[in-house]
Amino acid sequence: MIRFENDYTEGAHKRILERLWETNEEQTSGYGTDEHCEKARAYIRTACDAPNADVHFLVGGTQTNTTVIASILRPHQGVVSATTGHIAVHETGAIEATGHKVLTVPSEDGKIQAHQVKEIYDAHWNDVTHEHMVQPGMVYISHPTENGTTYTKAELEAISKVCRENGLPLFLDGARLGYGLVSEECDLTLADVARLCDVFYIGGTKVGALFGEAVVMMNDALKKDFRYMIKQRGGMLAKGRLLGIQFETLFEDGLYFDISRHAVQLAMMIRAAFAEKGFSFRYDSTTNQQFPILPDEICKELGKKYSFSHWEKADETHSVVRFCTSWATKRENVETLIEDIRAL
Amino acid sequence: MIRFENDYTEGAHKRILERLWETNEEQTSGYGTDEHCEKARAYIRTACDAPNADVHFLVGGTQTNTTVIASILRPHQGVVSATTGHIAVHETGAIEATGHKVLTVPSEDGKIQAHQVKEIYDAHWNDVTHEHMVQPGMVYISHPTENGTTYTKAELEAISKVCRENGLPLFLDGARLGYGLVSEECDLTLADVARLCDVFYIGGTKVGALFGEAVVMMNDALKKDFRYMIKQRGGMLAKGRLLGIQFETLFEDGLYFDISRHAVQLAMMIRAAFAEKGFSFRYDSTTNQQFPILPDEICKELGKKYSFSHWEKADETHSVVRFCTSWATKRENVETLIEDIRAL
Amino acid sequence: MIRFENDYTEGAHKRILERLWETNEEQTSGYGTDEHCEKARAYIRTACDAPNADVHFLVGGTQTNTTVIASILRPHQGVVSATTGHIAVHETGAIEATGHKVLTVPSEDGKIQAHQVKEIYDAHWNDVTHEHMVQPGMVYISHPTENGTTYTKAELEAISKVCRENGLPLFLDGARLGYGLVSEECDLTLADVARLCDVFYIGGTKVGALFGEAVVMMNDALKKDFRYMIKQRGGMLAKGRLLGIQFETLFEDGLYFDISRHAVQLAMMIRAAFAEKGFSFRYDSTTNQQFPILPDEICKELGKKYSFSHWEKADETHSVVRFCTSWATKRENVETLIEDIRAL
Amino acid sequence: MIRFENDYTEGAHKRILERLWETNEEQTSGYGTDEHCEKARAYIRTACDAPNADVHFLVGGTQTNTTVIASILRPHQGVVSATTGHIAVHETGAIEATGHKVLTVPSEDGKIQAHQVKEIYDAHWNDVTHEHMVQPGMVYISHPTENGTTYTKAELEAISKVCRENGLPLFLDGARLGYGLVSEECDLTLADVARLCDVFYIGGTKVGALFGEAVVMMNDALKKDFRYMIKQRGGMLAKGRLLGIQFETLFEDGLYFDISRHAVQLAMMIRAAFAEKGFSFRYDSTTNQQFPILPDEICKELGKKYSFSHWEKADETHSVVRFCTSWATKRENVETLIEDIRAL
Repeated sequence: MIRFENDYTEGAHKRILERLWETNEEQTSGYGTDEHCEKARAYIRTACDAPNADVHFLVGGTQTNTTVIASILRPHQGVVSATTGHIAVHETGAIEATGHKVLTVPSEDGKIQAHQVKEIYDAHWNDVTHEHMVQPGMVYISHPTENGTTYTKAELEAISKVCRENGLPLFLDGARLGYGLVSEECDLTLADVARLCDVFYIGGTKVGALFGEAVVMMNDALKKDFRYMIKQRGGMLAKGRLLGIQFETLFEDGLYFDISRHAVQLAMMIRAAFAEKGFSFRYDSTTNQQFPILPDEICKELGKKYSFSHWEKADETHSVVRFCTSWATKRENVETLIEDIRAL
Repeated sequence: MIRFENDYTEGAHKRILERLWETNEEQTSGYGTDEHCEKARAYIRTACDAPNADVHFLVGGTQTNTTVIASILRPHQGVVSATTGHIAVHETGAIEATGHKVLTVPSEDGKIQAHQVKEIYDAHWNDVTHEHMVQPGMVYISHPTENGTTYTKAELEAISKVCRENGLPLFLDGARLGYGLVSEECDLTLADVARLCDVFYIGGTKVGALFGEAVVMMNDALKKDFRYMIKQRGGMLAKGRLLGIQFETLFEDGLYFDISRHAVQLAMMIRAAFAEKGFSFRYDSTTNQQFPILPDEICKELGKKYSFSHWEKADETHSVVRFCTSWATKRENVETLIEDIRAL
Repeated sequence: MIRFENDYTEGAHKRILERLWETNEEQTSGYGTDEHCEKARAYIRTACDAPNADVHFLVGGTQTNTTVIASILRPHQGVVSATTGHIAVHETGAIEATGHKVLTVPSEDGKIQAHQVKEIYDAHWNDVTHEHMVQPGMVYISHPTENGTTYTKAELEAISKVCRENGLPLFLDGARLGYGLVSEECDLTLADVARLCDVFYIGGTKVGALFGEAVVMMNDALKKDFRYMIKQRGGMLAKGRLLGIQFETLFEDGLYFDISRHAVQLAMMIRAAFAEKGFSFRYDSTTNQQFPILPDEICKELGKKYSFSHWEKADETHSVVRFCTSWATKRENVETLIEDIRAL
Repeated sequence: MIRFENDYTEGAHKRILERLWETNEEQTSGYGTDEHCEKARAYIRTACDAPNADVHFLVGGTQTNTTVIASILRPHQGVVSATTGHIAVHETGAIEATGHKVLTVPSEDGKIQAHQVKEIYDAHWNDVTHEHMVQPGMVYISHPTENGTTYTKAELEAISKVCRENGLPLFLDGARLGYGLVSEECDLTLADVARLCDVFYIGGTKVGALFGEAVVMMNDALKKDFRYMIKQRGGMLAKGRLLGIQFETLFEDGLYFDISRHAVQLAMMIRAAFAEKGFSFRYDSTTNQQFPILPDEICKELGKKYSFSHWEKADETHSVVRFCTSWATKRENVETLIEDIRAL
């Protein structure tokens, strides 16, 4: 069985494991105060062209989303998200567990647009009973989205502008950020993301690390006491160096982007193979997740040799499925898959 | 200005104030342990044909909804509600503030149907990632709904059946319960409500009391320690007798239903007047709230003499407005309004 | 049975009931936006010599404490309180239910001192692991305290100074504020309280009203969106006028202080009677609660005719008990009690 | 600088890193559903003599404590803990952030006794105002405690008995469980702990793993839906196998106990060296943490070559300090330290 079902089926990129070996007996202070964390922070600030950013390392995505959002909102405020947003669907109500509503706006492809942010904001403030309703307090987007789609620079600039004009901090969930940034369709750089967002995170778990997410805090007003929040939410790893070492490795010489490019190239090969056979796609993804719509018997056929995710039923006889690639995906496996697609 | 904008523009029914006068110098114990509360509980148990019910008195509706729901759910569970449900829209995220998501199902008229409950339940448990999603833990409905519509006995029985088959406690928000029960279209009795729900409340604030809501707990499994919850959520009135005295007055000889009938009769007269002039209605309400769709110039004209609520825009030139009646609505004011409608 | 067990055994001062009668049929807007609320706010601002204060009306004390504290603190912060503070002991964990720890400092008589605030603040910030601990975020005191004791102006000024120097908002719980301010031992005025606190509340429930607490927000930085918080926490009464009417009556011509003086005078008569018989007191209270230490057989004897609270065991054969007076306490009942004390 | 400041200054035991290497390219399912997790669960059930236990893997201690406690308590309940308990002091209010109060009982050495549990339970239920107070809902202990002390089997049996008689689930925080179980003074086995507790966790982070804690759920009534709780609290690692692989390694052939014995032996050597020089100890620890009371000049002298924690001031001229050992502590470093102590 060759697995394409998600981008966390293996351990970590070899260089990360090597570095963990090399540093294993070093004695360091705990909780993210060690030298590896400091170096990783410096590399990330440079990569973001953001010398004043605060950089924090957390363990996982749900934890990171929860910690950031709970840190920013006042109790009567909610976070605006696409209906498809990870926080709205797949975190077992972690945001609500911190007391906050997720205010959803409709989305077909996982993205939201600037005008939607403006509309939900205006709808709130124009309602005479607005004190009886949850106040929009910040905006959450993911890039790439849960559906593999990406924002253009113009789109992100428009959202950022609406947010800043209306006092809504903008938080970008970058669980798969690398895959988005290297996409050929995406004209955003890491520095653009840093410039346009108030806070975002650079995902490690799904981009080559064993685990770990790097929060980049751009807005000074949000920086205060964030480490208390990390500790309270269970995200302050005793051996914080493990996170520092991993991000140091990913960002010291561009490994993070190399890994991302590898995965996206393979994903686009798979995409091309399905497209050549005339299959269409549920989302127009140019990143490491591909969502072909396949006849159910073909799903069954391919399923004998490959694992992939069932996403949703498309109609009575077709399904949307998801193929993922990652740092660990082997080119020969993709080539075998492509041959099998062609042979369908 | 004659006010039809809501059903809480005046104080309380005269008999309630009289009783507060008469009892003012009585010395009683606090926190709902006094004799008036005991009598009121007995009257309500009788009216509900529910001798084993626990009856608790709280101050307001948002508080009651929050206290009941927070008492029932475990942390990873949410409450199923219509998108239009008061808890989903108009309580400033009070439910989320207790850590729980409101899981909404679409509704055009404020009601939900049994199959929707079944569908959201099955969708959760059939999803392979259900542990990553909020688990439906109970169901919230309002009767009459926020739109004045009512459930039939058959509909409520069907919802109750689905809930019981799937272990979902059913909670009915009866902020305006009296108006629903006396509606000519509604074949439900208070005893039916008690029989079919696990917990519900009988609204006082909008049905003749100064304030106050009576929670009726039917399901033994939900009864434990509810008074702790009331205290924690700020609903345990020091002078709890004030609630006891009011519900005693409302339920000792049927005043609650007299008040409700009065309001609904007047509302139906208003409805008839609009209907005769050919206006249609946003919701098919047979209770004390009426939602005619009016040309904006007529809204403006009527607005000079009467206050009513703007509900929403119907189209470029029409609006949905709301006229409410209550225990306090004067027949002569309604007659004047009707004349003015006829003269439009 | 003559009741001295607490200060909420009766309804409300006669003038309040009269005013509720007179205004019963007035039609007003809801949720505290009516003219009675506005007038009450104006009277309170004048009484506090605080023309820019925000004044909000809530229903009960636990609700008020919870709403104020949850509105001020960030998630990682706690509220400093005496171990005896109402929020630390008698609110069923309402503060913790909003996510915040109550950071207690020891107190023998219900009061805390400025140096204790400074010490807990310094202890936090001097601890190298302070990010692993709850950060002191504000200070809660009650005046008079739960034990009937009062702060002097010098003491409150000292606490206020420490709070302001260290960025800790000071919140004063005035559930029985009137009784404290009229005490002969207390040199504080309402204007002093307003000047020295960031936010406080004027208790109505225990000082002549049916119910109701008036929050006075002095610190501009804390004012924003407080009405959302009231709604979310279930404290926004639909018929908000009921609170406005009551506080209007209490503050239009000094009734609040007349009521307070009446109760305190009677309490001091009771105190004197016990003192004359040689009994000592658990707390040195000069307000409406008195805590004599009595032999258990005398408790039993007095208990046949009077109700009062058992506070705690003093030793094997003695108990601390509490006698309360209020607006409703009758002079003749106090005189009868005094005779019976003398006859012991 | 030789570090004795805590037991998480290095990476992980060599065999764990080796196993991560070996398994790195294996493709597994996520979120703890893989074969390594299954094997680790089986080893742990065997080690606990608990074939029906549920075993879950989380990342860190604060997260584990929070998840377990929030899963068990109802909203009006609190968790009983020693004043020194980690949840009471060093988790930035994580428990309160889930809505629950930590109900502390005094402790000199980190332990609590059965009679204290009984007393706080009885005090609650015997108080007539108990509905106004947080209800004790479970008991938290740590073994070994934060001070290195351990419970005897008799003590734990007594606590367990009181808990079971009064319906209080007993939760044991085993962040350093191995060090406690191998202590010569401790007559408890892992199977005893499993038999006497309702839920406990086996700490990995401080006993040789990179990170990870294994929750063992013994009480069937507490098992339901715990994975939802893990996900909501951010503890469900995408690459859950990392936890499985580590605990598999630790428990397949007793490595966990070998590591623990190594550390405790070295700690006892350090203890003996201080004792021989006549120094006394703050706590009577027989585990991997030692708390000698040293003159400040000696602290300064030793501090030039060794790092250790300042615990607290003992008096004007003496301090309590902490020396920790771990799987990673080198015998030669301990021998050097002992020589230096002897030479003082």
